[in-house]
Amino acid sequence: MEPPLEVIRFEPPALRVLDQSRLPHEERWLDIRDIDQLEEAIRALRVRGAPLLGLCGAAGVALAAEADAAEAPLRAAAERIGSARPTAVELATGAAACRDAALAAPERERAAAAWAFCAAYLRRRQAEDGALARHGLSAVPPGDVLTHCNTGTLATGGAGTALGVVRAAHAAGRLERCYVTETRPLLQGARLTAWELLQSGIPAVLLPDTAAAALILSGSVAAVVTGADRIAANGDTANKVGTLGLALAAARAGVPFFIAAPTSTFDPACRSGAEIPIEFRTAGEVGGYGDARWAPAGVEAWNPAFDVTPADLITGIITERGVVRPPYPAAIAALLRELQLEAAQR
Amino acid sequence: MEPPLEVIRFEPPALRVLDQSRLPHEERWLDIRDIDQLEEAIRALRVRGAPLLGLCGAAGVALAAEADAAEAPLRAAAERIGSARPTAVELATGAAACRDAALAAPERERAAAAWAFCAAYLRRRQAEDGALARHGLSAVPPGDVLTHCNTGTLATGGAGTALGVVRAAHAAGRLERCYVTETRPLLQGARLTAWELLQSGIPAVLLPDTAAAALILSGSVAAVVTGADRIAANGDTANKVGTLGLALAAARAGVPFFIAAPTSTFDPACRSGAEIPIEFRTAGEVGGYGDARWAPAGVEAWNPAFDVTPADLITGIITERGVVRPPYPAAIAALLRELQLEAAQR
Repeated sequence: MEPPLEVIRFEPPALRVLDQSRLPHEERWLDIRDIDQLEEAIRALRVRGAPLLGLCGAAGVALAAEADAAEAPLRAAAERIGSARPTAVELATGAAACRDAALAAPERERAAAAWAFCAAYLRRRQAEDGALARHGLSAVPPGDVLTHCNTGTLATGGAGTALGVVRAAHAAGRLERCYVTETRPLLQGARLTAWELLQSGIPAVLLPDTAAAALILSGSVAAVVTGADRIAANGDTANKVGTLGLALAAARAGVPFFIAAPTSTFDPACRSGAEIPIEFRTAGEVGGYGDARWAPAGVEAWNPAFDVTPADLITGIITERGVVRPPYPAAIAALLRELQLEAAQR
Repeated sequence: MEPPLEVIRFEPPALRVLDQSRLPHEERWLDIRDIDQLEEAIRALRVRGAPLLGLCGAAGVALAAEADAAEAPLRAAAERIGSARPTAVELATGAAACRDAALAAPERERAAAAWAFCAAYLRRRQAEDGALARHGLSAVPPGDVLTHCNTGTLATGGAGTALGVVRAAHAAGRLERCYVTETRPLLQGARLTAWELLQSGIPAVLLPDTAAAALILSGSVAAVVTGADRIAANGDTANKVGTLGLALAAARAGVPFFIAAPTSTFDPACRSGAEIPIEFRTAGEVGGYGDARWAPAGVEAWNPAFDVTPADLITGIITERGVVRPPYPAAIAALLRELQLEAAQR
């Protein structure tokens, strides 16, 4: 599957990305020339989505190499970019992989090597999304799907993860409509996923996050499929806040709950969800959106960007390598060994 | 407990209510002179909250009696007001009770009888809220509470139901802060509950609806307490959409989940939640708020105003007569028999 939209371009010495914070009302591209600008774009969620952040992490190393390709500053830059948001493991792994690719080249060729790495990384992402969607199609039962946040092209640069599965199911005639949660506080479902689906001619039905449990228990969806930001060694999964509630409702209703994420989302260094760092964001995001304010001024807020869904609530984890099923600790360990072996053979 | 705010006044021939759709930014009172105006105010959620709707239903009969106090038009008016919103049973029972009180008087005294009924009804509500809060205090464990939507003075004219319990717990030093969900799509938590709590000097912490499951599983709250719009004979409870998700998370976490509602919320004519009619509202409420629009134009929406929490997820139902505990069918039937006997003896 070709990605239906373009959201990221490598144009040395610049990185160009679609400013997602302006969608769906405005399609504006950002011209990013240094890692200060990149960090701002990441923090302000102008770019978001774990796999796309991986690409941005890599591009950050290329931007840094344009300024100074010596080893120490390049390592420092990769470190800094990798920690711009604490929960998405791919931001750091993308930066680290590009750093290693760049450092393998002589200093004057490092920027070019980093950009070449980025382009190859994007092509690999797109191939991975296609493979993930095909595996998803075999696992997810026919019928309408509920998804959360944005896991489409805007999130990966490819066909998407959970939304890639939805695209494949729609193309195969197995799904009539995709239900989408608004995804407060930043409304990625309402702003981005609804927009992507409509652009692709897939009927989208938007619902308030509060209505998701009722929808799932009503029998209207055959499955819930979401993305992931980090998956621990035991299968516990950090994803956009609100995912946990969907998983609890799906378990109650006997509706399968799938995570769709590339294998790069697994983080064996986290033994369980308790070890995944959770980013807390400002109170300003709650009680309003953009210029609209509806809460009384000065009210405190509790605003985690992610929650952790315990492994026992997850029916399967759809990856580009196949669908990982419980018991997760053994299945994930086996998959990661396989990937390591292949990497060692390359 | 005195209600900390005034939200409804009976000033024959007018009903005056605080326009809740303008809070927290503006405190504007509506001067309602006929049932067309009342119906508009109810449909547009300028007044809301099941117990306050009961008072408004009664006041609607008084407004109708001011225009024409003959029996047939008065019955027709009560019928019409009672069905302005389909899920809140108290709107219809308030209108019917006031109709009966008015019809017991000679035609020329019916308007006065209806207004007198309304005033007595409000005093009874305030006494009931006080009793409910005292019972709640004995049932809810000490510690912080999470609540949903608005169940305070704005919802009842008294101290509130779930929020009355919170007020009592705070006054007793058993609660430091109250966590409040935003309550999309109409944001009653962010707009109304946060405002009421801050007005009363009770620390409020606002959270996106998506964060509620994570908060409950984090161990930060000792209980979840919400209101109810209608309770079936088996204990299944219809309340503001999103309640079901909170109950599922509380069950997973082993956190007690209480409904706080006056006994008038029980509807023995509904054997289970499946028989409670659920109001669906327009797509326009989803994908934006007020003038702010964030979803792409034309996207479909699924927008139920209420959901049904199955009885097995409810730890107890706090009423002005005490706390109803499982098994619910027997406990609810016994309580309703008791109330009928008392009514017959009056």
